[in-house]
Amino acid sequence: MRHIISVLVENKSGVLARISTLFAARGFNIDSLAVGETDDPQVSRMTIIVPGDDSVLEQVTKQLNKLVDVIKVTDFKDTEYVERELCLVKISAAKSSRPEIMQIAAIFRAKIVDVSQDSVMIEITGDESKIRAFIKMVLPYGIKETCRTGIVSLSRGSKN
Amino acid sequence: MRHIISVLVENKSGVLARISTLFAARGFNIDSLAVGETDDPQVSRMTIIVPGDDSVLEQVTKQLNKLVDVIKVTDFKDTEYVERELCLVKISAAKSSRPEIMQIAAIFRAKIVDVSQDSVMIEITGDESKIRAFIKMVLPYGIKETCRTGIVSLSRGSKN
Repeated sequence: MRHIISVLVENKSGVLARISTLFAARGFNIDSLAVGETDDPQVSRMTIIVPGDDSVLEQVTKQLNKLVDVIKVTDFKDTEYVERELCLVKISAAKSSRPEIMQIAAIFRAKIVDVSQDSVMIEITGDESKIRAFIKMVLPYGIKETCRTGIVSLSRGSKN
Repeated sequence: MRHIISVLVENKSGVLARISTLFAARGFNIDSLAVGETDDPQVSRMTIIVPGDDSVLEQVTKQLNKLVDVIKVTDFKDTEYVERELCLVKISAAKSSRPEIMQIAAIFRAKIVDVSQDSVMIEITGDESKIRAFIKMVLPYGIKETCRTGIVSLSRGSKN
């Protein structure tokens, strides 16, 4: 089981260090983390994927709320939400195997963003399981490099 | 000026805390950070955007290389590379303004991933300037929430 925790924080130096130190000190694992700006330059949003049961979620939320830099903690338990991740994948591809790889990319609605004599780079977005399925499909060609953003998430509907 | 630094690290607890504490202690700022799995479950990749001149890049690289959990540090200075970020944006949208927003989304090759009576959620990927331009275009409708992954990047061509 895993939880998606969305944390609005003051955009100040040292905030990430304080939050990640809290996780390390309390022994909470982090599966993925994404930090980006919001439309307010003073505020950043962190999306943290935490494995564990409901008591872990409760503990993490409680500890995060104690930090002064934390503005708001939201989890998506009992909420409909959209989750997305972006992954860049560089795949070994001689000219002969390019059409097959392009076909797989098309099926997954992925985009080819670069090509060389012996490789293609693909941008794919989706939830975790879609990205996992795509990587499994292209694995036999040889993956040179991958770079993933970690998951970001927003609740469905009009409430924010 | 800003630098994109890609760091392969051991996928162990506490690594993020050690790296972000290093940044905080040395006074290096972080514009964005994305952490995700690689195709090797023992290894994660962090993409860190650091503002500053070449001496900052040199210092950060040197300090990162001192950490035992760090496997490899790459920067994209003097390299051709692809950078991408994913952003989810929830926009206020009555039925009447939906067609206009859908048109803007189409121009930016963005995807509509959710809709309610008074909002739409859009997934957009691209480099920083594309995402900034999109957000500027939809700002007048009212942004309810945004969630960004931070930038990820891979070098162009076949080398890894």
